[in-house]
Amino acid sequence: MDNYTAPLRDIRFVLEHVTPLSELTALEDFSHADPELVTGLLEEAGRFASQAIAPTNREGDAQGAKLVDGEVVTPDSFKRVYQQYVEAGWGAVQHPPEFGGGGFPLLVANAVKELITSANMAFSLGPLLTTGAVYLMTHHASEEQQQTYLPKMVAGEWAGTMNLTEPQAGSDVGAVTTKAEPVGDGTYRITGQKIYITFGDHDLTDQIIHLVLARLPDAPPGTKGISLFIVPKYLVNEDGSLGERNDVKVVSLEHKLGIHASPTAVMAYGEDGDGAIGELVGEPHTGMRLMFTMMNDARLGVGLQGPAIAERAFQQSLAYAKERRQGRGPTSEPGEQSPIIDHADVRRMLLTMKASIEASRAVCYANAHALDLAHSHPDESVREYQQKLADLLTPMSKAWSTDLGVELTSIAVQIHGGMGFIEETGVAQHYRDARIAPIYEGTNGIQALDLVGRKLPYDGGAFVKGVLEDMRSTADELPDSLADIAEALRDGVDVLAETTEWLGSRGDAINDVFAGATPYLRLFSTVAGAWLLARGAASARRLLDEGDTGSFSTDFLEAKLTTARFYATQILPQVHGLAPAVTAGAGDLYAVSAEQLAP
Amino acid sequence: MDNYTAPLRDIRFVLEHVTPLSELTALEDFSHADPELVTGLLEEAGRFASQAIAPTNREGDAQGAKLVDGEVVTPDSFKRVYQQYVEAGWGAVQHPPEFGGGGFPLLVANAVKELITSANMAFSLGPLLTTGAVYLMTHHASEEQQQTYLPKMVAGEWAGTMNLTEPQAGSDVGAVTTKAEPVGDGTYRITGQKIYITFGDHDLTDQIIHLVLARLPDAPPGTKGISLFIVPKYLVNEDGSLGERNDVKVVSLEHKLGIHASPTAVMAYGEDGDGAIGELVGEPHTGMRLMFTMMNDARLGVGLQGPAIAERAFQQSLAYAKERRQGRGPTSEPGEQSPIIDHADVRRMLLTMKASIEASRAVCYANAHALDLAHSHPDESVREYQQKLADLLTPMSKAWSTDLGVELTSIAVQIHGGMGFIEETGVAQHYRDARIAPIYEGTNGIQALDLVGRKLPYDGGAFVKGVLEDMRSTADELPDSLADIAEALRDGVDVLAETTEWLGSRGDAINDVFAGATPYLRLFSTVAGAWLLARGAASARRLLDEGDTGSFSTDFLEAKLTTARFYATQILPQVHGLAPAVTAGAGDLYAVSAEQLAP
Repeated sequence: MDNYTAPLRDIRFVLEHVTPLSELTALEDFSHADPELVTGLLEEAGRFASQAIAPTNREGDAQGAKLVDGEVVTPDSFKRVYQQYVEAGWGAVQHPPEFGGGGFPLLVANAVKELITSANMAFSLGPLLTTGAVYLMTHHASEEQQQTYLPKMVAGEWAGTMNLTEPQAGSDVGAVTTKAEPVGDGTYRITGQKIYITFGDHDLTDQIIHLVLARLPDAPPGTKGISLFIVPKYLVNEDGSLGERNDVKVVSLEHKLGIHASPTAVMAYGEDGDGAIGELVGEPHTGMRLMFTMMNDARLGVGLQGPAIAERAFQQSLAYAKERRQGRGPTSEPGEQSPIIDHADVRRMLLTMKASIEASRAVCYANAHALDLAHSHPDESVREYQQKLADLLTPMSKAWSTDLGVELTSIAVQIHGGMGFIEETGVAQHYRDARIAPIYEGTNGIQALDLVGRKLPYDGGAFVKGVLEDMRSTADELPDSLADIAEALRDGVDVLAETTEWLGSRGDAINDVFAGATPYLRLFSTVAGAWLLARGAASARRLLDEGDTGSFSTDFLEAKLTTARFYATQILPQVHGLAPAVTAGAGDLYAVSAEQLAP
Repeated sequence: MDNYTAPLRDIRFVLEHVTPLSELTALEDFSHADPELVTGLLEEAGRFASQAIAPTNREGDAQGAKLVDGEVVTPDSFKRVYQQYVEAGWGAVQHPPEFGGGGFPLLVANAVKELITSANMAFSLGPLLTTGAVYLMTHHASEEQQQTYLPKMVAGEWAGTMNLTEPQAGSDVGAVTTKAEPVGDGTYRITGQKIYITFGDHDLTDQIIHLVLARLPDAPPGTKGISLFIVPKYLVNEDGSLGERNDVKVVSLEHKLGIHASPTAVMAYGEDGDGAIGELVGEPHTGMRLMFTMMNDARLGVGLQGPAIAERAFQQSLAYAKERRQGRGPTSEPGEQSPIIDHADVRRMLLTMKASIEASRAVCYANAHALDLAHSHPDESVREYQQKLADLLTPMSKAWSTDLGVELTSIAVQIHGGMGFIEETGVAQHYRDARIAPIYEGTNGIQALDLVGRKLPYDGGAFVKGVLEDMRSTADELPDSLADIAEALRDGVDVLAETTEWLGSRGDAINDVFAGATPYLRLFSTVAGAWLLARGAASARRLLDEGDTGSFSTDFLEAKLTTARFYATQILPQVHGLAPAVTAGAGDLYAVSAEQLAP
């Protein structure tokens, strides 16, 4: 039952009508990425994801990644599939042509990421981390470093990792204590332990490039004293061949709730000698700033895991609901069992999944679209505006989408009834795998604080006000036949405006703002999802009314109208339930002591 | 970190001020259960649960239940702890004295169940199933059957199981096909397969009494042709000793997402001969009716798993949040990391857990209280009213509490950050274990249909109207100092009244009612929780105002006020977000075909 079909129709609809790819291909950077080429690329990626990768998902979970004699062994099928991944160049899609990349917009690269993540989330994490490392090195490494490392990393022949977390420095990266001592020859000796290192070691590539946060001897305390280093698993010879083994090793792998096939390592640097040999990236003490340049991209990449895994779970649930017969639906004959999809309550679960997936996919894609414009638009004011929009959307893409990933995979378990609790069915794996996404790459609580603490204050609040006006315009421009969606959207924006104003009015009472952060992020994202679905509904309605539906079928466009209306009228109103928690202030949260909370 | 302390203070508060035990001990049936005795009993149960059972939880999960040479082997520690359970007589608490039971109210027995479930949910399922079997046999088995089986089952020396489900008969029990052929000597030969049989075999007791649903040769189709049979693992000799092995065996055990230490068996009856030997319980073709008599008790038992497992996860989260230091809280010194409990967002998570646990505990206990009055009150009209109240509360206890169990254990994972995803921490286990409760004993969707389809129509809707009036009275009687709670509660009841009226007005459009069932159950339960917390808050306020807090500390009572206010003003308003989905009707749910939902 657990087949996967790439949702290319919905993705193409988003790229044409919600977050237009055409606005990007009009730019010089992306002029080569014409729609036909992109459609072909996505079809090819969809085939690879569904036919080659998707079948490895259950087996990978059952085998898991293992530590054997100090080296990490990934599931058997991973090596074969990764080889195909490298040969087809899937890792290169978003990277600059000068290092062998495809130079495609993030919007397109993220669609590819979605497909690969749906096919096998654990597998997708290796490439995701390499992408992050490449992104960072593309922007900040020296030309020599770039020439040494990037071509092979872009090709996927070498992998990359990110080493931030230490036991005492999780969400608080400023507490990092790993040391970097200058040797005098331009290299550094790195000593320390890092935890939760995704794909910290593996057998998919010959070489792994670790990006490591550490402190120089003269570093000031906190985030302003952190520097970034390249620490390769094998030192690289002058001729580019692999040399001596560096002093970096895996101490242990974690036993995790999910993503069993993704090795999560405790890494030791310099445990067997004077320190692992590393190279400084950029200026001393700028590690945090360098990290921040890739933050939006990395957080968006994790956010996409929400709709990606929910899509996989949805398809499995839909197939089950069509096949499984229990009880009688509204139109079934006496004595005959109906497929459970005939029951209203099962339909509610399926519609909730589908509408929420479409909404969070749209928000994530809009986020990528904004990042692309921020990067490549010729007009500086457009770039600035789009960067702010991307900054605003990023915590929502990351936190809301991944919270939905957990909730929607839970619904998938429920649709399967008893079968959902049996591991062989595979749906429980999606539920387990999805649970990491709200935690890593900045917990969802941190995302909410970022939204209210850093993003709302942009331009003294005027920036967000402008976005809300855009949302109102979308509602106002909807045709009369979509009046129910328009009314619901206006109502949602009103609630969002009121709560936004309240948060903006708290002045020095910053903890009142923090207290409302999580329900506010949920509220804002829920409205943003409705906004983008309404945009799509307007296009679907227009195509249907014009009688020229192009490459989309009437059935497909009518389904888009239904999910948009269902979302607007039955999910979006949840914002009314969230608002009082946003504006309650911190009072009651601190009215009890830790002792009073204890049993 | 994963210690468990029995929340005896909160339970005692509920028994004194929310669902008064004194109303039960005033009755003849329960006159022996005076508060002091009950307090002692619960303290003893709390010690047993926290000291003996709780330490077996992680180990049990890691070892799991195993099938070895056709017999089920439970984790090592289970045999030791179960022996202590039998010796102390914990399984006998709620059963009738004539079979060696304690004759305590369900209200008290369920408090004991909560403690044991918190300590080890997988372990608690064996006793839970035995309790269900005893309950059923107490009401419907012949005197001879009762004498043969009940004393040992009440003592816990023999275990019991419930065999309903078959592959084609999950939620639709009427589709059962297991056969029962009369032998002619008063016994029957049972042949067929049953699935999802909890503790279908194990090594905790010498004997297991299976209650099996099957069809007699002349049975009409559907639920009206199902009969109930006793099928012991070993036939019982005249003198009560164990005789020949019956033809019932375990075919396989399921590999499950959670409750690994609870064996979930596929059972085969009569596979090796002419059929397993069974005895009919009650009249032919009345099996479903007999099952229904234990339904409320069984569903409430499962519902309790919600607050039970959430309480365990809460205590672990609180301990972690007090110890783990990250970032700076609102009052911490520069350069100093605060315990994360100082952060507003973490406090929101902890308060949400605590308030929701208290609310769902109160609803479950009110349900037990109603069942006790329905069973034992001398006045028939009181019994009738309380039976209806119990019938109304049961789907909420079962579905809402277990949905919360999933959501709250997910919050617990989140509070732990990266540690939450590591199995050794133990919090992920609670998350995995909790996920079964919305599925078994009637899926939560089925509960919602039961609520709107069977319970709302009681007395043409007048019964539920009366309950809503009781809720309003509670709000009206709150003192001025609790005006915020009163206002929020009245507001919540208004939303509940409007949606209830809408559902009652649909006439023949029954699928509109079914379409709103799940959000309505959530809405009703959320208000019911607020109602009972308000009742507790009124008592806490009164005790504080009188300056005589009795056996409760001022700190404890003030915390009760805070959680009630937090719930009323920040959680209860979610009903506004649910109402539109309740009253949307089935239209949009059926506006798309299964094909249109596919990618």
